[in-house]
Amino acid sequence: MSVTAAQGFTAAGIAAGIKANGNPDLALVVNNGPRLAAAGVFTSNRVKAAPVRWSEQVLRGGTVSAVVLNSGGANACTGPKGFQDTHATAEKVASVLGGEHNAGEIAVASTGLIGVLLPMDKLLPGVETAAAALSADGGEAAAIAIKTTDTVHKTATAGQDGWTVGGMAKGAGMLAPGLATMLVVLTTDADLDAATLDKALRDATRTTFDRVDSDGCMSTNDTVLLLASGASGQVPAYEDFAAAVRAVCDDLARQLIGDAEGASKDIRIEVIGAASEDDAVEVGRSIARNNLLKCAIHGEDPNWGRVLSAIGTTKAAFDPDRLNVAINGVWVCKNGSVGEDRDLVSMKGREVHITADLAGGTESAVIWANDLTAEYVHENSAYSS
Amino acid sequence: MSVTAAQGFTAAGIAAGIKANGNPDLALVVNNGPRLAAAGVFTSNRVKAAPVRWSEQVLRGGTVSAVVLNSGGANACTGPKGFQDTHATAEKVASVLGGEHNAGEIAVASTGLIGVLLPMDKLLPGVETAAAALSADGGEAAAIAIKTTDTVHKTATAGQDGWTVGGMAKGAGMLAPGLATMLVVLTTDADLDAATLDKALRDATRTTFDRVDSDGCMSTNDTVLLLASGASGQVPAYEDFAAAVRAVCDDLARQLIGDAEGASKDIRIEVIGAASEDDAVEVGRSIARNNLLKCAIHGEDPNWGRVLSAIGTTKAAFDPDRLNVAINGVWVCKNGSVGEDRDLVSMKGREVHITADLAGGTESAVIWANDLTAEYVHENSAYSS
Repeated sequence: MSVTAAQGFTAAGIAAGIKANGNPDLALVVNNGPRLAAAGVFTSNRVKAAPVRWSEQVLRGGTVSAVVLNSGGANACTGPKGFQDTHATAEKVASVLGGEHNAGEIAVASTGLIGVLLPMDKLLPGVETAAAALSADGGEAAAIAIKTTDTVHKTATAGQDGWTVGGMAKGAGMLAPGLATMLVVLTTDADLDAATLDKALRDATRTTFDRVDSDGCMSTNDTVLLLASGASGQVPAYEDFAAAVRAVCDDLARQLIGDAEGASKDIRIEVIGAASEDDAVEVGRSIARNNLLKCAIHGEDPNWGRVLSAIGTTKAAFDPDRLNVAINGVWVCKNGSVGEDRDLVSMKGREVHITADLAGGTESAVIWANDLTAEYVHENSAYSS
Repeated sequence: MSVTAAQGFTAAGIAAGIKANGNPDLALVVNNGPRLAAAGVFTSNRVKAAPVRWSEQVLRGGTVSAVVLNSGGANACTGPKGFQDTHATAEKVASVLGGEHNAGEIAVASTGLIGVLLPMDKLLPGVETAAAALSADGGEAAAIAIKTTDTVHKTATAGQDGWTVGGMAKGAGMLAPGLATMLVVLTTDADLDAATLDKALRDATRTTFDRVDSDGCMSTNDTVLLLASGASGQVPAYEDFAAAVRAVCDDLARQLIGDAEGASKDIRIEVIGAASEDDAVEVGRSIARNNLLKCAIHGEDPNWGRVLSAIGTTKAAFDPDRLNVAINGVWVCKNGSVGEDRDLVSMKGREVHITADLAGGTESAVIWANDLTAEYVHENSAYSS
């Protein structure tokens, strides 16, 4: 049900002709109120795409009446013309939707190749087509239209007691924090203000999308939006609402890792015994980004030496002679040296669990990553993306 | 001529049976004086192999009479027994060489799989074999014996006016700073003290081995040693000597990149217009480690958007709208946006030059990297290394 699971939202996904292959490439999500509260988090990359620059401004007001998203082009590194194109897109959406809509409350998100201007002669007429296709069942079509190299579209829902949080996500490569590279739109019919949405969204992304690292590459276009219509009339307790937002983000983040370009393994890296959560995250990311380890996991080789060499590059608090590492439950490294027999480790499944114990405290963190495969190389070298 | 190009040194390389395939795996380099001055730099990885911990202590004294190096096992993450094995190896070398030699002046270096104890029943007899094979022509054999996945052995020489600097290196993967992962032994017959050697070595490695980044992975065993015999009786001017050391390091570093595991391209990344050298290095490393860009280079795709997204993840001083990027001399990105026609870029050769202009100052730095290929994945997933 995606972004239309919550009451008060309509959506559409259509083929505007931005993608040369004719696949759907334009999505529209409209908040029909009565509330138009919204929050957003964006890439921390300092090279930001035009739609990110635009939407950051829009979200500053805490009000979003619609989101227009395109695949087939990132509109990043496109100069003043690119920003004008984003502005024109928002104006077009406001004009086509009519009524109270104004461009300053329309968020824009784009994904695709960096450094290419969007074909506005196709995109703007596409907005009209999308607006005409808006429906309360349009969530799936919208989720499909934002796919790039995604093999499947990604949606999730949660909620209780008459209110719902729903969402859609795209992302299959360039997945790394801050904010795993992705476009995500979440909607809710809970009756909450922008400040509450902002807090719940930041709480959720910090431990979900921010802890996904498929390939260490940070995008210029990351955008995660949360829109509230208030249509349910319900005002959930903050903790309940935050838990639902976190559940949807966690579900979508896991789907992103499961569909990462060329990956054959999903790697869950849990760092325990850390002196601080920051230490745990730093070590987890270092392990997640170690190409040699990622290759070893692909080869189903429990090469714990590469885990230790990755830990050793961090500033986290640990004593090299007290480090412990388990792979799929077998403690192959104990006290910084050889532990249980590595032949006991089975790595046949898609999911591989690495536990790194820093033996220096009680804090922990989980990072999700992927293996490195020849298919990843092929997908990212055979054509521009 | 490798480590025996300079007068006063003998060397040997033999097969001790550490490697299962019977290839040479043990090298010995002996300084016959009259001086025994030495300097060393080591991995900055906090997880350090036993031989690194040992040799760091040895080098503190500024005197090294011999270096014993083995391939076929890193002796890293091997606990107290691993350190005892390193100590025993140094004792064995001192005992076999006899005379004034003592273990506290014998450096040890190891390379190979992490987390496996060395077969001391083969290594110690191998020391005797190597000592018996020592000769003033042994430099090539020593360079061959330290190879792991290297396809060729690496040697270089420089010098003038009756003095020489020679060296050997191994390294083909896990090449990243601080200190690209490698074992390197440099020798000279110049008559210089340990402090001068230390300064020249640190000056040289800072801009050579420290700026090689084949795969972003830092080793536990990096060791670069410089030994002086004084046998030429010459005392070169510091600048001349430092230039020769730098030339040998630069030559060897370039050979390491040229032989990196699975690589099909050598990528020279020059960052110009930086506010500081540190900024230039940070940006260069970020570009060097971007897997998506490395894939694009492999595919001969001048995907400058991936260069910008890598720059954007750094803390360096720059304005995104003033960034310029050239690939093989074509300025495909100007002022953060589309520049010259990317179809003008030819990427057929093995060497690819990327210039990133931060337009924020006058400092610069060069980082060397490799592309990411299916062969790299294969080499690092098909078996433990």
